[in-house]
Amino acid sequence: MSRLYEDHIAQQFAFLIELDELKSIMRQSPLINQSRKENSAEHSWHLSMFALILSSHARDTVDTLHVVKLLLVHDIVEIDAGDHPIHSIGESDVLVAQAEQLAAERIFGLLPKQQGRKMLELWNEFEAAETPEAIFAKSLDRLQPLLINTLSNGGTWAEAGVTQEQVMERYGPVIERGSPILWDVASKRVCEYFETLERE
Amino acid sequence: MSRLYEDHIAQQFAFLIELDELKSIMRQSPLINQSRKENSAEHSWHLSMFALILSSHARDTVDTLHVVKLLLVHDIVEIDAGDHPIHSIGESDVLVAQAEQLAAERIFGLLPKQQGRKMLELWNEFEAAETPEAIFAKSLDRLQPLLINTLSNGGTWAEAGVTQEQVMERYGPVIERGSPILWDVASKRVCEYFETLERE
Repeated sequence: MSRLYEDHIAQQFAFLIELDELKSIMRQSPLINQSRKENSAEHSWHLSMFALILSSHARDTVDTLHVVKLLLVHDIVEIDAGDHPIHSIGESDVLVAQAEQLAAERIFGLLPKQQGRKMLELWNEFEAAETPEAIFAKSLDRLQPLLINTLSNGGTWAEAGVTQEQVMERYGPVIERGSPILWDVASKRVCEYFETLERE
Repeated sequence: MSRLYEDHIAQQFAFLIELDELKSIMRQSPLINQSRKENSAEHSWHLSMFALILSSHARDTVDTLHVVKLLLVHDIVEIDAGDHPIHSIGESDVLVAQAEQLAAERIFGLLPKQQGRKMLELWNEFEAAETPEAIFAKSLDRLQPLLINTLSNGGTWAEAGVTQEQVMERYGPVIERGSPILWDVASKRVCEYFETLERE
């Protein structure tokens, strides 16, 4: 094996080893069994399975496996920049975006140049939410914690004192943009959850 | 939305909700930072990233995204059947295989019929390890814990008192079958790890 080829693989290994840290980035969402919070690595796996199973419900026709790629990569910047929950208050979007941009450059920069550029493109595509695949990926990234919350005594909604109206506002437009059908089903679950709460 | 369509989505949601349990299936491998053991959901994400990054090193040309699909799905049966580490002794392979078969039928059976059959096919393809994609996926499933062990004071090797010879025997054939180049690089890392051990 040439020295150049060996260096190439060493860079790839360095990146893959760095990724192990995403398993220690904790999200606000609980597991459905409520034993602990969810981390961003297992969240990314779960979302990828959402994409495999639900992509026929996307508003536009999507390349399922491209959606999977976007979701596998979308949270990697959190290794440096941390997770920023949608119900958090007072965080500066600009500062978060800057931290994530620096994180993307550092972490994807561990890879051989061309491959690093491709990963960066995937992450930028997800963030921009303009292609059918990115729009659908974003909707799954909202749908998954919504489902979890309805099944775990309100999860982050209960913790942050979020109202039904706020749920509709914060999840609705993003999910509906990617899939009106999934929002139709999901919003019914939200209503059922808050109705159960009132009865308790 | 028709009642039939609503039922279809309800089955898909039931499957995706069930998958949350894979986050609580613990493997023997530690995280590289050694804060805890790895679970099978985050392991599946990590392996999918290995596939995205390393697939050009496969012995045969592979469809990268098909490798990713196999890896996303390969451990789901552990929700019922548990994880079975390669260094465990005295477990009956036949009993494990039976438990995994039952698990596959129950869990993939939550999905609408055609989709459940497709998931089952992916899992069977991985297990059979005959297609180029499954052969390569299996090699990544050995490579990832090998790398982790060399970076975490021996990880499962140290715990189970596994020798360098046993590592070569248990990981070598599977990794080399999928990628002689990756085995070349990985086996050097194994040698370096055991050399460091001797010097300590």
